Amino acid sequence: MNGLRLHGYWRSSASHRVRIALECKGLDYEYVPVHLVRSGGEQYSAAYRALNPQSRVPALESPDGVLTQSMAIMEWLEEVYPEPPLLPRSPGGRARVRALCQIMVADVQPLQNISVTRFLQGTLNVDDAALKVWLREWVGRGLRAFEEMLAEAPGGGDFCVGDAPTLADVCLVPQCHSARRFGVDPAVYPRIAHIELACAELPAFQRAAPDRQPDAVA
Amino acid sequence: MNGLRLHGYWRSSASHRVRIALECKGLDYEYVPVHLVRSGGEQYSAAYRALNPQSRVPALESPDGVLTQSMAIMEWLEEVYPEPPLLPRSPGGRARVRALCQIMVADVQPLQNISVTRFLQGTLNVDDAALKVWLREWVGRGLRAFEEMLAEAPGGGDFCVGDAPTLADVCLVPQCHSARRFGVDPAVYPRIAHIELACAELPAFQRAAPDRQPDAVA
Repeated sequence: MNGLRLHGYWRSSASHRVRIALECKGLDYEYVPVHLVRSGGEQYSAAYRALNPQSRVPALESPDGVLTQSMAIMEWLEEVYPEPPLLPRSPGGRARVRALCQIMVADVQPLQNISVTRFLQGTLNVDDAALKVWLREWVGRGLRAFEEMLAEAPGGGDFCVGDAPTLADVCLVPQCHSARRFGVDPAVYPRIAHIELACAELPAFQRAAPDRQPDAVA
Repeated sequence: MNGLRLHGYWRSSASHRVRIALECKGLDYEYVPVHLVRSGGEQYSAAYRALNPQSRVPALESPDGVLTQSMAIMEWLEEVYPEPPLLPRSPGGRARVRALCQIMVADVQPLQNISVTRFLQGTLNVDDAALKVWLREWVGRGLRAFEEMLAEAPGGGDFCVGDAPTLADVCLVPQCHSARRFGVDPAVYPRIAHIELACAELPAFQRAAPDRQPDAVA
């Protein structure tokens, strides 16, 4: 074993990203489910807060200590386990992949996060219909921006940048899953739809899928 | 000249981050203001959309093309202009700095972004008082999480990680500025307060400050 233990939740898109990255790197890891809803949210337990005071998933126990924030974890994986690479070699290519990632990580996911939707409903009294409008707006804007950015430099390959998956694909696929939950069909974006299908053929992406996790609910 | 041209807005925290990083690296750059409010937002103009279809600031014109997303731009700067470094050498240190960055970039800033606050008011009919509650909640949570993470591994130095500024400080300082605008005092967090003062002594941080920009409004 390599001492990697991932605390995550089956349908958290940030957890899903890190699972895909771990699988792409061919790494063994222990998966520890943290149920974000049951008992008011296990992420708020004293045990989990000792691991990650921010009460968010994922957290990766590693030889370098407990790592948090999916993007930081994936950059760490890339540095410590460079093969196969999930970032291109050129700084320009890396910037493009990271910008695609940040559309999902910083522009979409924070707005659909369970802590945010709970606050909208519980504190701002936003009703179910308005919450749907909110979710569809941000998920839709993010997918559209991602598709537009893919269109700027069409690679012709099956993946976001180049001929193999990068962190951009790793961030895109979980967002497609979340989009469907919120009633947004990512397949209306042809480039995204093509890439999602290509990723679905890869065993690493298959093994990381939410419904394949031990804490998945049918 | 090195061909760097930054499109930004004086008090956008993402633009502020990139200005600090450019100044820390000692790079000359041209600053092109994009007024996010005037005329319904200059970021929606055809000219700006040709540069960044996402209609967000910052965007950096560079020898590698137009770069978007502040975190991707800063990683690019670090790779192309490695001195002085804004990330530690060890993967564990780098993961820590990047996790601190992502608290601001992914957990706080997206929720205070002008596009989001406009949507809350214009579409979800959230009133001014509730918007204040929203902003204070997320800015407060983010600063608290940042302070807690600093407390986990107190370095004893004047900066977030180690004895010199890193991208964590580059992300923290703009968030402190935004926090004050939204009525949250970052000085209640002693580690953050100490670091902000230390950064304020550095010419790079001084030159990048919002009120020193040509588009600043008194």
